Amino acid sequence: MSADPLAIPGPGLPSQSFQPPPRLLLGPGPSNVHPRVLAALARPTIGHLDPAFVGLMDEIKSLLRYAFRTTNALTFPVSAPGSAGMETCVVNLVEPGDRVVVCVNGVFGGRMRENVARAGGVPIVVESDFGQPVSVDRVEAALRANPGVKALGFVHAETSTGARSDAQALCALAREHGALSIVDAVTSLGGIALEVDAWGIDAIYSGSQKCLSCPPGLSPVSFSPRAVEAVRARKSPVQSWFLDLSLVMNYWQGEGARSYHHTAPINMLYALHESLLMLAAEGLEQAWARHAQNHQRLRVGLEAMGLELLVPEAARLPQLNTVKIPPGADDLAVRRALLHEHGIEVGAGLGALAGKVWRIGLMGEGSRPESVDRVLQALRSVL
Amino acid sequence: MSADPLAIPGPGLPSQSFQPPPRLLLGPGPSNVHPRVLAALARPTIGHLDPAFVGLMDEIKSLLRYAFRTTNALTFPVSAPGSAGMETCVVNLVEPGDRVVVCVNGVFGGRMRENVARAGGVPIVVESDFGQPVSVDRVEAALRANPGVKALGFVHAETSTGARSDAQALCALAREHGALSIVDAVTSLGGIALEVDAWGIDAIYSGSQKCLSCPPGLSPVSFSPRAVEAVRARKSPVQSWFLDLSLVMNYWQGEGARSYHHTAPINMLYALHESLLMLAAEGLEQAWARHAQNHQRLRVGLEAMGLELLVPEAARLPQLNTVKIPPGADDLAVRRALLHEHGIEVGAGLGALAGKVWRIGLMGEGSRPESVDRVLQALRSVL
Repeated sequence: MSADPLAIPGPGLPSQSFQPPPRLLLGPGPSNVHPRVLAALARPTIGHLDPAFVGLMDEIKSLLRYAFRTTNALTFPVSAPGSAGMETCVVNLVEPGDRVVVCVNGVFGGRMRENVARAGGVPIVVESDFGQPVSVDRVEAALRANPGVKALGFVHAETSTGARSDAQALCALAREHGALSIVDAVTSLGGIALEVDAWGIDAIYSGSQKCLSCPPGLSPVSFSPRAVEAVRARKSPVQSWFLDLSLVMNYWQGEGARSYHHTAPINMLYALHESLLMLAAEGLEQAWARHAQNHQRLRVGLEAMGLELLVPEAARLPQLNTVKIPPGADDLAVRRALLHEHGIEVGAGLGALAGKVWRIGLMGEGSRPESVDRVLQALRSVL
Repeated sequence: MSADPLAIPGPGLPSQSFQPPPRLLLGPGPSNVHPRVLAALARPTIGHLDPAFVGLMDEIKSLLRYAFRTTNALTFPVSAPGSAGMETCVVNLVEPGDRVVVCVNGVFGGRMRENVARAGGVPIVVESDFGQPVSVDRVEAALRANPGVKALGFVHAETSTGARSDAQALCALAREHGALSIVDAVTSLGGIALEVDAWGIDAIYSGSQKCLSCPPGLSPVSFSPRAVEAVRARKSPVQSWFLDLSLVMNYWQGEGARSYHHTAPINMLYALHESLLMLAAEGLEQAWARHAQNHQRLRVGLEAMGLELLVPEAARLPQLNTVKIPPGADDLAVRRALLHEHGIEVGAGLGALAGKVWRIGLMGEGSRPESVDRVLQALRSVL
């Protein structure tokens, strides 16, 4: 057995600890993580059924309710990235044959359509141009034309385009037509106004690594009592065991002793807790205002350089700025120079916008005047 | 809006950083994490498409191949806990209507049966008593009686009972009958002999938080060329978008530029890399030997106290010891005293074994003579 070359760490097997290069993360996420959150992440691991950990879970739920502006009992972080949060919402609410109006104005709306189809649902797609918000009128027409749809799904803050949609109006339409609303808040939570209860959102998912500035790997979710009722009324089992809310909620919601479902990602939850404490200490509305201010600083600087934003002003996301690549600039060469000469990551265009835009994220810890000034200076030097 | 009590951090909202109590983790996982791994976890987050991160991904794949003893190209960590690793194997390999022989000799075999059913497969269950290994004879009979089954699924190291099954014999049977093998190695990887290539394992999943002593949240998986071929030959799309290997592999396997699928859990991957470096530095076979030695030390000590192990000697897992609760001992009171007076976590019985056994894990960093001596001394004091 010792003759097996795989069995002996040889010259081919890595042996050095990984040291990440210093980076200012101004792409579409992850954003830079505060040292306080990194320190929390590195505290010693304890068990997922430890009474001390159960106390932490309760605090995380309270803090997430604060961030989502909700009193929803079923509010917790899914033990996987935002894509799994999307899948959690879809597979629990959509049963085979259910019709769902899905709004597609970017890559993540397209991903939701794909999730609905894989759950056996029938997506009714309402398309809007990439870079534009979801058309409320077209959604209303689709809901009128398709009475009895189970749900309306849309992306609040399209990370692929930088467009903000009118979540309040869309959720009101869903209620009016008796449909549940499923809202992608991966990039909006903590960065722009988001009111789960006031807007009547039924199911919402986000990501830890955007405006919360926690490392990637967790997806905060929240479900209204209506949504929980819909899960309880299902005729068929949820196709995913790992994401089945009827099982997960016994772990996150049990009174006293929690029943084991899967092993929670302990250290990542330490980090999420710390990042939510920092958000609460700043104040949610203060965080929204900070994101808005630093966006203005960036916009002014970009315009002074003659650069244009893709998204119309009324729909711009302060935390995700899509900048049109100017004529003559080499997309990849510019991003490489920013990364390797200036230590700054910005995002490439995604999907239909590949090669046409850069995505400059000012999310969470990244939304600071110093970050804005650094990226503007670097762009001036590179272009 | 400022009148909303949720909007203002008030007396009800947590404000203190979480400080985990000191614990010696000798339950069924998570195990204690080495300070080197915690330090890696806390390094600054970088982007999931950063060239430096892509280099780290390649190293993780090499190190996982070493740990799994395989040359399988498709070897990577799923971005979620072991339960999602199980689901990854099942939903990618099992199509609606496929018959799968599933061996149930504990809680996790039962979970695999549930996963197969939710994927639309038809589980053919081979039961063995809890605490016993999977009956190779009964599996052979089931395979003979059901020609053409798609796969054989079983748990190598049943975390709920402490029994080791003969993975080599079971995988040989699967090959003989033209079935793919799906192996749960959540608790076996790094703790006992496991030979993916030599035993002809087709799909295998593990967890980061057991014998690898990394925090929970990742599930290393590996797929043989036969398994990859079966995924490519599917007639229906995989029901999970998040776990669809045909999409995930473009991120983990792409040459040069990786295509984005989901945001990888960056910091958790730093930690996994570090824990795998430590395993390679010790040597895989040396780690197996260490687990065996410390198990013997525990067994001798338990027997000296008149305590009995549930599992017959030939099938005992050194990393997970199920101890029969002696007559007159109060299960919960003993575990509480161990936790609160001695800072030691041991596991309760799970499923059919609840109230009948304690589970003492000696996994990864926990498999040390000092840990054995501490838990023995604590048990002597409490009982």
